Amino acid sequence: MSTIPVGLVGVTGYTGMELARILSNHPSMKLVRVTSRAEAGKTLADIYPFLYGMELGALEITAPDVDDLEKNCRLVFLAVPHKTAMNIGGELYDRGVKVVDLSADFRIRDRETYEEWYKVDHTREDLLTKAVYGLPEFYRDKVREASLVANPGCYPTSAIVGLTPALAEGLIETDDIVIDSKSGASGAGRGAKVGSLFCEVADSFRAYGLTTHRHTPEIEQELSVAAGKDLTVSFNTHLLPIDRGILSTIYTKMKNGVTAEDVRSTYEKAYAAEQMIRVLPEGVLPETRWVRGTMFCDVGLVPDPRTGRLIILAAIDNLCRGASGQAVANANLMLGLDETEGLRMAPMMP
Amino acid sequence: MSTIPVGLVGVTGYTGMELARILSNHPSMKLVRVTSRAEAGKTLADIYPFLYGMELGALEITAPDVDDLEKNCRLVFLAVPHKTAMNIGGELYDRGVKVVDLSADFRIRDRETYEEWYKVDHTREDLLTKAVYGLPEFYRDKVREASLVANPGCYPTSAIVGLTPALAEGLIETDDIVIDSKSGASGAGRGAKVGSLFCEVADSFRAYGLTTHRHTPEIEQELSVAAGKDLTVSFNTHLLPIDRGILSTIYTKMKNGVTAEDVRSTYEKAYAAEQMIRVLPEGVLPETRWVRGTMFCDVGLVPDPRTGRLIILAAIDNLCRGASGQAVANANLMLGLDETEGLRMAPMMP
Amino acid sequence: MSTIPVGLVGVTGYTGMELARILSNHPSMKLVRVTSRAEAGKTLADIYPFLYGMELGALEITAPDVDDLEKNCRLVFLAVPHKTAMNIGGELYDRGVKVVDLSADFRIRDRETYEEWYKVDHTREDLLTKAVYGLPEFYRDKVREASLVANPGCYPTSAIVGLTPALAEGLIETDDIVIDSKSGASGAGRGAKVGSLFCEVADSFRAYGLTTHRHTPEIEQELSVAAGKDLTVSFNTHLLPIDRGILSTIYTKMKNGVTAEDVRSTYEKAYAAEQMIRVLPEGVLPETRWVRGTMFCDVGLVPDPRTGRLIILAAIDNLCRGASGQAVANANLMLGLDETEGLRMAPMMP
Amino acid sequence: MSTIPVGLVGVTGYTGMELARILSNHPSMKLVRVTSRAEAGKTLADIYPFLYGMELGALEITAPDVDDLEKNCRLVFLAVPHKTAMNIGGELYDRGVKVVDLSADFRIRDRETYEEWYKVDHTREDLLTKAVYGLPEFYRDKVREASLVANPGCYPTSAIVGLTPALAEGLIETDDIVIDSKSGASGAGRGAKVGSLFCEVADSFRAYGLTTHRHTPEIEQELSVAAGKDLTVSFNTHLLPIDRGILSTIYTKMKNGVTAEDVRSTYEKAYAAEQMIRVLPEGVLPETRWVRGTMFCDVGLVPDPRTGRLIILAAIDNLCRGASGQAVANANLMLGLDETEGLRMAPMMP
Repeated sequence: MSTIPVGLVGVTGYTGMELARILSNHPSMKLVRVTSRAEAGKTLADIYPFLYGMELGALEITAPDVDDLEKNCRLVFLAVPHKTAMNIGGELYDRGVKVVDLSADFRIRDRETYEEWYKVDHTREDLLTKAVYGLPEFYRDKVREASLVANPGCYPTSAIVGLTPALAEGLIETDDIVIDSKSGASGAGRGAKVGSLFCEVADSFRAYGLTTHRHTPEIEQELSVAAGKDLTVSFNTHLLPIDRGILSTIYTKMKNGVTAEDVRSTYEKAYAAEQMIRVLPEGVLPETRWVRGTMFCDVGLVPDPRTGRLIILAAIDNLCRGASGQAVANANLMLGLDETEGLRMAPMMP
Repeated sequence: MSTIPVGLVGVTGYTGMELARILSNHPSMKLVRVTSRAEAGKTLADIYPFLYGMELGALEITAPDVDDLEKNCRLVFLAVPHKTAMNIGGELYDRGVKVVDLSADFRIRDRETYEEWYKVDHTREDLLTKAVYGLPEFYRDKVREASLVANPGCYPTSAIVGLTPALAEGLIETDDIVIDSKSGASGAGRGAKVGSLFCEVADSFRAYGLTTHRHTPEIEQELSVAAGKDLTVSFNTHLLPIDRGILSTIYTKMKNGVTAEDVRSTYEKAYAAEQMIRVLPEGVLPETRWVRGTMFCDVGLVPDPRTGRLIILAAIDNLCRGASGQAVANANLMLGLDETEGLRMAPMMP
Repeated sequence: MSTIPVGLVGVTGYTGMELARILSNHPSMKLVRVTSRAEAGKTLADIYPFLYGMELGALEITAPDVDDLEKNCRLVFLAVPHKTAMNIGGELYDRGVKVVDLSADFRIRDRETYEEWYKVDHTREDLLTKAVYGLPEFYRDKVREASLVANPGCYPTSAIVGLTPALAEGLIETDDIVIDSKSGASGAGRGAKVGSLFCEVADSFRAYGLTTHRHTPEIEQELSVAAGKDLTVSFNTHLLPIDRGILSTIYTKMKNGVTAEDVRSTYEKAYAAEQMIRVLPEGVLPETRWVRGTMFCDVGLVPDPRTGRLIILAAIDNLCRGASGQAVANANLMLGLDETEGLRMAPMMP
Repeated sequence: MSTIPVGLVGVTGYTGMELARILSNHPSMKLVRVTSRAEAGKTLADIYPFLYGMELGALEITAPDVDDLEKNCRLVFLAVPHKTAMNIGGELYDRGVKVVDLSADFRIRDRETYEEWYKVDHTREDLLTKAVYGLPEFYRDKVREASLVANPGCYPTSAIVGLTPALAEGLIETDDIVIDSKSGASGAGRGAKVGSLFCEVADSFRAYGLTTHRHTPEIEQELSVAAGKDLTVSFNTHLLPIDRGILSTIYTKMKNGVTAEDVRSTYEKAYAAEQMIRVLPEGVLPETRWVRGTMFCDVGLVPDPRTGRLIILAAIDNLCRGASGQAVANANLMLGLDETEGLRMAPMMP
């Protein structure tokens, strides 16, 4: 078995750490370049002591260099902020290097929408039609052919997996959707901010970014595809005192005549063939720890005849399924490997 | 200053512990009886070592005895499960002892509704019209005259404070209300259950009791009063890996023409005179730690013109404002003391 | 009752927050000045939203100004870094304003030792003999007369309270003392550092600063006083994933012939009159939560005949007893008030 | 590649859950029997919903039956309490089934010592000489030949790995060793006890079982082997508010003339060939999260010339290296597989 050389641009954050964890055990992909302007010259283990004694720990960090990446990598993961990703991703694309971009730069197909929510100009509008939105369950075939994949946001992954079957089958009203999401603190990144300190997050709970979160247009874009019509959702986020995990509680109105059985059979059928989505049995509700460290998106279904609502719960690990793990799944597809290669981890409990 | 002797029936749970904390510093009320069949004969400090060296720690636990309570206490707090509370509360009432009942037994004014949700017969229907629902901001005058107060549930306190002004002033639709609540683990009580173990709660997050939580009829009862018409809400709960704190994120639809200014002025006016409710300034969202250990209910308001919704956030400490602190506020009123006597604690941060 | 006006220099850290919590309920002391160069012009509630609706929240922050402090405050608390404290503390002292300094600048009586461990020159050596080490149990009378009090470090408070009776009575060897201390994350301050992020501290545990912690000379200074001879200890620290609390596990060798009864009677006698030290009964070991938010230092005693050791456990709340609460106790003494005025809080459980 | 059928007796605790996690990805070993008297008839996923959708989740739980285990398993893991393990382990041994016992029943080679600390009679003294203590780094060759392996305790694993080189090379005094250990809450098991509740463990820290922990004789037995003479240690334990992880801080006295270089070179040489022990570089101290979910034992070395002490830190994951992972390593050896097969996981960070 030959191994495929890949690179990672931007190694110092939690998504970089998670990618290192996953790739350290990947059977067919080998991380041969990791770049960081600030840390160049050090080994990975110097900045991530948890990698001491592992082969990957000895890898030297280099400054980002497109020539070098082109020469040595068949595919490059980008774990850099939006705007930066657009530029380096565009350059790599131009040279024929496959790219999985973990930023938001190529997720929004409409340039104006992107610019409105992200407050920057998009300098590579030409690539917006070429980039594939990398949610494998819905774009698997396109990802296989893609040179540039926009890796989905963490919250959107949970919301889109949670809502798509109900919208696609017309079980719910499209004008009354509320997505109440809660995320662990790793979602805020590894930057040194007072608001992310242990003593500001532990033993507390708060909402943030209500009505203005940048994942909103991404969610609406994909749900509109599912519904076959443009829709608007109320998407709102909260900060959990946990490391990893997203739970989205999604409130919808069932259309007249839709039964609990309709709901269950629709979801079970929609995801019957999916290894990485688990529609939990009736009465079982997802917990973030059940997906910790894994690619699973767990879906719980609670029809409520008393109020005519359908409550959908969707849980993922924001760093694995919501970022680096999904990036590896996309890379697997782009490189002709099995989608879940290196990704069949069991959850860590407790 | 003379002190008023009071008693506590049911001392082994978290609400009992919180009542002990509060009363250990109350200027006018003195805990002279604490009862527990299982722990009778021990001192309070024997079962709560955190009370060593405090006067209250030396108090001996006795078996519950209505004669003894009648003779020695002007008011008794009941921190026992529902059904048990009904019986002992009724007996104390009959003997003229004032009662603050922390259980649900006297909260629901309609017997059938109570029996349907709690699955037990109500044996003291005669008291349902005599009991006053002890949310001081709305029933202050009645509490002052009451002999029996039904202390509100923790979740309902947050939901009712959060929604009442909007309903009373007709700012929102009454048929599209979703209350997404999250509570710390002390809300599950101090019983030894696997689901409450540290390793089952920490570093995780889950929903529970969706669509079936027993606080639903209590919330609907009080919100119907506020709205002036019967209404139904979707009320759903989640378990946070924190000790104390509830945050309810409440989703509503604004009526046509209602503006953000209407919302803010309505709430500021409604609660202008309230010391224990804080309507936070625009752009500031509540955090559970800001109310930790206090009587505050913090309210945040987020109108969303894009979706026509008004999101209301309400945060309380479930043990203090949501249980024992509110019980003391009610006792203060019933005993002719200042409502917030002994309750003006600042939050503990961090 | 007249209130005494006091000031706080340096308001943005956790010790400032804790001082605000305590003084917001102090019967005789009133905070009239809070200073911060960076936040001047804002109100306290602007930076500490948990103070909204409280009188103290409306206090305006000013830039530090010695003239203004002299004119308006009878006593000033310094919650600024060492070296800064030395200067402003010296100036205030010179003008006759009483000072409680929470930094290390006046704790070490030997200038050379200070300079060796803190790596800065001491510019006010003249005050080293005037400053009183503010551990009330041991220096109460001197504190009453003092104009400048060096408020003890958090770790030293636990270690000195824990070891002094055994050393003073000669129960243990002086050359074989190990202090293994563990502290909550608030001890690291509110600075934005990667190492203090939630995701770097939660669900983990680590040692830090082994053999080199700056509290070492402070501990050795006071233990040498207790023992009547110079001694050296091995003092080592760890970071707990909790907000508040220090537990020091102290390993000593009992002298020949010393019995468990000797140990217990020595400690009970030594601390019999102390309200804020609790020698726990045999078999009961301290827990950090039992002292959360309080002035208690809880002491547990475990003689081990099998190894000839005496293990002493000492627990405090690092922000209250280990910093701001102890500062208020010292201020009480300096202002002629009762030592524990405003400080008789019960622990918050859970 | 053929797979080897193995069984697990006692599936409901955290070690059972961890074994399921590890074996769900093991290339050569397959779990074909899981037993629990209480849960017989259910599938594994019924009691562990995190296994839904995984092959192992469909495995049916059976009542323990030695005949059935003999017929279907080449090796059986015992995750049952001590005393129970002795009996069923003995029966399986008698029938020629290989056994890895995670209880303490076969760890102590001296029957009297076992009975003194565990307060039960040992009914299979005949097996005490046959059982091999399964710390692979020290007993690898014997484990390969063994039919019955006593899987080491979690604390002892950290203490023995941490101290053996220093004792074996005579770097430290043997009569002055203090092991101050801290463990995550999963070490207390999954039983429903008040002391293990979230609200009793979170945001707190406490010592427990001082001077009397049952792992003491196990540690002393193995350290005496390393030192070549009988020794006694002071071993003491604390409860951390984390799920997994043990950090032992070990205090020793260096012999005269021993240098920091001696210490480092001794440890690096001793463990140079070990894949699962990492002697961290100078100045780097272990953190429990760096070994989370892995087999690593991380060792940090801090010589302190000022006090003449050597402080040794050793960190493991108590469920993986300290229990189920080590059990699989032993099973690997007993079954002729590579010692680390299925065990080369990278740590989960954060």
